[in-house]
Amino acid sequence: MGARVLLTGATGFIGTALIPALLAKGFEVHAVARKAFSPPPGNIITHSVDLMDLAARRALVKSVAPPYCLHLAWNAIPGRYLTTRENLLWTAATLGLYHDFVTCGGRRFLGIGSCAEYDWSYGLLKEADTPYRPSTLYGSAKEASHRLLQGSALLDGVSFAWAHLFCTYGPGESPGRLVSDIALGCLNGEVVPTSLGTQIRDYMYVKDVANALTCLLDGQVEGTVNVASGIARPVSEVILAVSEAAGRPDLVELGGRESPVEEPQSLVADVNRLRNEVGYEPSYTLIEGVCETVNWWRSQIRND
Amino acid sequence: MGARVLLTGATGFIGTALIPALLAKGFEVHAVARKAFSPPPGNIITHSVDLMDLAARRALVKSVAPPYCLHLAWNAIPGRYLTTRENLLWTAATLGLYHDFVTCGGRRFLGIGSCAEYDWSYGLLKEADTPYRPSTLYGSAKEASHRLLQGSALLDGVSFAWAHLFCTYGPGESPGRLVSDIALGCLNGEVVPTSLGTQIRDYMYVKDVANALTCLLDGQVEGTVNVASGIARPVSEVILAVSEAAGRPDLVELGGRESPVEEPQSLVADVNRLRNEVGYEPSYTLIEGVCETVNWWRSQIRND
Repeated sequence: MGARVLLTGATGFIGTALIPALLAKGFEVHAVARKAFSPPPGNIITHSVDLMDLAARRALVKSVAPPYCLHLAWNAIPGRYLTTRENLLWTAATLGLYHDFVTCGGRRFLGIGSCAEYDWSYGLLKEADTPYRPSTLYGSAKEASHRLLQGSALLDGVSFAWAHLFCTYGPGESPGRLVSDIALGCLNGEVVPTSLGTQIRDYMYVKDVANALTCLLDGQVEGTVNVASGIARPVSEVILAVSEAAGRPDLVELGGRESPVEEPQSLVADVNRLRNEVGYEPSYTLIEGVCETVNWWRSQIRND
Repeated sequence: MGARVLLTGATGFIGTALIPALLAKGFEVHAVARKAFSPPPGNIITHSVDLMDLAARRALVKSVAPPYCLHLAWNAIPGRYLTTRENLLWTAATLGLYHDFVTCGGRRFLGIGSCAEYDWSYGLLKEADTPYRPSTLYGSAKEASHRLLQGSALLDGVSFAWAHLFCTYGPGESPGRLVSDIALGCLNGEVVPTSLGTQIRDYMYVKDVANALTCLLDGQVEGTVNVASGIARPVSEVILAVSEAAGRPDLVELGGRESPVEEPQSLVADVNRLRNEVGYEPSYTLIEGVCETVNWWRSQIRND
C-alpha cells in the first residue's frame, strides 16, 4: 500500500495531470475538490469538501490523516486572479489546511507558489538569491503563505517544500490564457490578435509540471524550488508553435494587441535546484507538449 | 446615532479598555467574543461568534454591516504566542474578516500589529523607514496580515490602518507578563526574580492604547502607525515603579533570572505619526498607569 497523499484542487488544470503522476509513483491519492467528481481508475479516493469551511476541512484531514499533502487549490481565474481579494480566503484556507495537517500528524507538505513572488526587476529568478517583492496581490498572497508555512514548519519539525511555478500550459487549461486562446481560435478558424510576443518566458508542459511536483513531493528536498523547464524563450515562439500545430499560423495577428503594461519583459527561472537536488528533467519538448495540447482542444471541439 | 464599529476580541485585555473609549467617542459598538459576555452599559450590542468559523463570521458581518472594524482578536497567550501555529489560524481569520467586511460594504478597517514585525536590529523603529523582518512566527503572521490587507485595501478602495503595538500594560493583563507578575508577586508577598532590566522598551498604559486606537479609527490616517508612548526606558524602571506601587520593592530580585537570549536589547518607537498625524498624546504617566494597575490587582486579590 502506498503512502497516503491529500491532493487539493484535484479537478483543476494541474490537479487533473497530477492524479496519474501520483498513482504512477504508488501513492494512495485522496483527491479533494469542492464539487463531487468521478475519479479515474486506480488507488484513489475522492472527497468533496470546501477547504474554506474549517469544520469540514478538519473532519477531512482527521479522517484521512495523510502523511503527505500536496496543496493546489487556489483561485487562478484568468484576468481576475492577480487582483481578486478572494485570494485572501485562499491564503486563509492554505494556512488552515497546513495547521490541520500538522495537528493530525502530517509529515511532508508541498505548497504551490508562483514566479509572481519574486522581485521581477531581477532577470534570472533563483530560489535562494532573488529577493521576494511581489508586484501583485496574488504574488503577495502566495509569498505570505510560503513564508508563514516555512516559518511554522521549522518550529513544528515538519518537512516543507514550496514550488514556484512559471508558465504552465496543456490540456484542460482555462480559456483566456495564451496557449488555450490561440489553440481554440485557430481551430475555430478565427483571427487571433496577440501581443508582439517579445516577452521572455519559461513555458512548461503540464505533464512535466505534474511529474516534477510528484518527484519533489516524493523526495526530501526542503524549501523553495522553481518548477520550470529551464528554457526561456520569446512568447512569439510559443504563439507560432501552437498556431502551427493547429494548422493555421495565418490566423495569428502578432502585435494585434498590446501587452499588459505591468508585465515584466523577462521572467527566467534558474532550474539548478530542480535538476540537481530534486533530480527532475522535463521530458516533453515544446513541440510535443503543444501538439498534445492542440489535439486535446480538437477533441473537445469535436465532442461539443 | 453613532457609526457602527465591529470590535473583535472585545473581552480581551485591550478590548475591555476599548469599549469605554469607543462609547465615549459616540460609536455604536458591536462587540464580538467567542463566549457570551455581559456588556457594560451604553450603546453596545454583544455577539458571541467564533471568527474562525467562516459561515458564522459571514452571517455576523452581513447582519451588522459595519462601516468600521477594529480587529483585536488574536492569540496572545504569554509564553506561547510567539511560536504557536494557532496564529496561522488567526492570520486566516484576520484575512477572512477583512474580506467579509469589505464585501459587506465596510469603509475603514483598523488592524492590530506589533513591534515584532520590524527588523529588530534597527534601534529606532519608524513606520515608513524601518524594514520589516520579523524574528518570530508571531511577528511574521502579523506582518503577512498587514501586507496582504494593505495591498488588498488599495485595490478595494477601502480605508486601512494598522497599529504597531509595543509593550502594553494595565488592569486585566494576563498573568505571565512583566507588570502583572510583579504586581501579583509583590501583593502576595512573594519574592519576584526578574532579569536585570537593562533592556530598553516602550511601555504604554492600556487606557492610552485604547484612546489612541479610538482616535486612529475615528480619523483618516492610513497605513501603519506606531502606537506607543514615545518614552523608551530601561525595563528596570518599570519593575521598580510596579514594586513600589505595591509597597514591596524589597521583594524584587533584579538579575534573579536570565533575559531570554532572543530578545533584542532595545525596541524604541518613533511616535511622530501618532503625535502629528493622528494627533494623539498619551495622558497617563508611568506612575499613574502603574498605580491604577496595582490597585486593580489589589481589588482582584480581595475579591478572590
